[in-house]
Amino acid sequence: MGGLRETSTLEIARELAVSTPSKIVLLVVDGLGGLPDPETGLTELETADHPNMDRLAACSDVGLTVPLMPGVTVGSGPGHLALFGYDPLRFRFRRGATSAMGIGFPMVPGDVAARANFATVDENGLILDRRAGRIPTAEGERLCHLLRQVRVEGVQLFVEMEKGHRAVVVFGGEGLSDQLSDSDPHQEGVPIAPVRPLTPEAERAALVANEFIEKALALLRGQKPANAVLLRGFAGPPRAPSMRDVFRLKAAAISAFPTYQGVGRIVGMDVLPGGDTLESEIVTLERHFGHYDFFYLHVKWTDSAGEDGRFLEKVRLLEAVDRLVPRVEALCPDVLAVAGDHSCPSVFREHTWHPVPFLVHSRWCMPTSVKRFTERECARGSLGCFPAERAMLLMMSHAGKLSKFGA
Amino acid sequence: MGGLRETSTLEIARELAVSTPSKIVLLVVDGLGGLPDPETGLTELETADHPNMDRLAACSDVGLTVPLMPGVTVGSGPGHLALFGYDPLRFRFRRGATSAMGIGFPMVPGDVAARANFATVDENGLILDRRAGRIPTAEGERLCHLLRQVRVEGVQLFVEMEKGHRAVVVFGGEGLSDQLSDSDPHQEGVPIAPVRPLTPEAERAALVANEFIEKALALLRGQKPANAVLLRGFAGPPRAPSMRDVFRLKAAAISAFPTYQGVGRIVGMDVLPGGDTLESEIVTLERHFGHYDFFYLHVKWTDSAGEDGRFLEKVRLLEAVDRLVPRVEALCPDVLAVAGDHSCPSVFREHTWHPVPFLVHSRWCMPTSVKRFTERECARGSLGCFPAERAMLLMMSHAGKLSKFGA
Repeated sequence: MGGLRETSTLEIARELAVSTPSKIVLLVVDGLGGLPDPETGLTELETADHPNMDRLAACSDVGLTVPLMPGVTVGSGPGHLALFGYDPLRFRFRRGATSAMGIGFPMVPGDVAARANFATVDENGLILDRRAGRIPTAEGERLCHLLRQVRVEGVQLFVEMEKGHRAVVVFGGEGLSDQLSDSDPHQEGVPIAPVRPLTPEAERAALVANEFIEKALALLRGQKPANAVLLRGFAGPPRAPSMRDVFRLKAAAISAFPTYQGVGRIVGMDVLPGGDTLESEIVTLERHFGHYDFFYLHVKWTDSAGEDGRFLEKVRLLEAVDRLVPRVEALCPDVLAVAGDHSCPSVFREHTWHPVPFLVHSRWCMPTSVKRFTERECARGSLGCFPAERAMLLMMSHAGKLSKFGA
Repeated sequence: MGGLRETSTLEIARELAVSTPSKIVLLVVDGLGGLPDPETGLTELETADHPNMDRLAACSDVGLTVPLMPGVTVGSGPGHLALFGYDPLRFRFRRGATSAMGIGFPMVPGDVAARANFATVDENGLILDRRAGRIPTAEGERLCHLLRQVRVEGVQLFVEMEKGHRAVVVFGGEGLSDQLSDSDPHQEGVPIAPVRPLTPEAERAALVANEFIEKALALLRGQKPANAVLLRGFAGPPRAPSMRDVFRLKAAAISAFPTYQGVGRIVGMDVLPGGDTLESEIVTLERHFGHYDFFYLHVKWTDSAGEDGRFLEKVRLLEAVDRLVPRVEALCPDVLAVAGDHSCPSVFREHTWHPVPFLVHSRWCMPTSVKRFTERECARGSLGCFPAERAMLLMMSHAGKLSKFGA
């Protein structure tokens, strides 16, 4: 089926989107797709008991989404941007930007943000653990507080906590470029790397970053277990058109994790207080259902189970998600879509390139003989295998929010 | 599934490809796809007994490749370029270039090559047979030897044999343009055409080509059955990035035919001595298996059978190819793909636009209920109908040679 990307989803939505009172819920099950377990020949979705999603699949339009292009594996950021209708090849955001947006830091032009990971180094400065044993958030908070003592001439510094060992550093000033290499060498057993300018214009920014790092390391010396900080993904303020302007949607994001809240913020969603569990996420949806017309409801834990190779844990989580589906249906959204940002099979223990199960349910569906919500059943669906970037157009039309192209 | 032409396969591969020891074998069955025989209602693939390809299809990711775009028939050159990840709309090579590369002629900047076909003309100079009755290669060799006497002031001339009635002429010099019309009028019963410059810069090249032709015709006068030569497809050195640079692959081509060896050489493959039979091709693969990580294994004869309308011969050849599949599997490549450059149904006697059966096999497949490797079974596969240009990305990911896009 023709992807025909020359005209982007954003362009066509800008032209055709209309505001209506109808409501869309997009349930994103992170790392949704799987691969067969070699013993049973069944995927996680095929193994799980998820009667509600199966019932939905049997009365919905179903298919498989291709996150970027056939054969290419994507990270969660690009995978989500595609589902929101944004071409991940055009909208590329480095970690500093998604982290800053994730904690709701109001970046302004001139700011450069970096993800700062607390780490452990040995007496010779070689990195022992890039995540300092995944210290708890309270410990990270304490270290952030320490680092707020750092001063660099002519630059405003913000050190903000994210979660666990993750923090964000924002450099505010004039003439700072984000074209900088990471101080995180992305491996252990080696020293922290100096930040290098990637273009001549970034020389001052590199000096600033290195001065910050030097002073931060001096303050962290002797701390346990985290006695160092690694900076990566330097980025200026992320720029993307708002879903309000493009899709005429008042959109809200519900996720337990700052990174995903950040992606939502970048595309103009309000981030709702989501809590840390599936249950708290659904309660948030219920509480705010009257106030938005598009909800991005994110379930992260399935992806983590896939990455850790815990097949049965992923099965259990899919079953837990399924039990929430009737709570979503009880709100009577005009459109309910179930999607994944990418596949993450437990047998592969990483994201893969395989296309991802997708369903969109409304009054206006063409159900086929599909009986279950699984990879192989969705492969037989009437939507076929299509670019994830077009999924928003399907949701919009099912919700009566997309007008006709041409007379 | 996504057409996705904006970012080419080469661009994304350049960004994500990594070199690993894993090995890919791409078996290209030329003119693979067919159409139903009006009497039996079965295609060549459906008629043939090919248990090995069927067994593979049942445990692989399968689909149909679209060589260029829906509804467009391609030649073998563009069909192959797409399978190698090169957009045929961007990489256009005229016959002179593929012929010269096919015989391994080392073209340098400034060279202009043309395919030279030996032909028969009558006493009035009208063309009787554009292929001189398909003279044997030995006779072509003899005529090439004759033509090597031709001298043109200020130009180096190379006359090289290709196969049968086909030779290559290369004009080496400075300031020669390849913007020239053919002397081959592409029909019989008319005189040989003068070569015309297509741009003002090509005037000198046209004079040179016409002087060569005049002297060549004088030398061939009185020969039998070939007493003339027709030039076509004037081309400078073909330029394309190497698969080594783009895909980080050490790639080898195994084909019995110079044209396909030429396409392989253009994209940076080493051409292995292939021999003239299926058996000799597979022996070549076995001998060199340790030395490359990508093998393009080409089977030409199926296409010729389709073009000649010999349905049962194509069936027989598909069965012969199938018997070689276990020999390839015995080498334990990490990825085995079976593809075609285009369809060539015996009932149509020419290439067609129909999408082409494709399978990719590795440890990381999602087999569906597909039980045979046929046009109609592949249409039900989980890969759907997708651009051939993306096939390399699938092979690369299955081989663990493509890193993740974005965090």
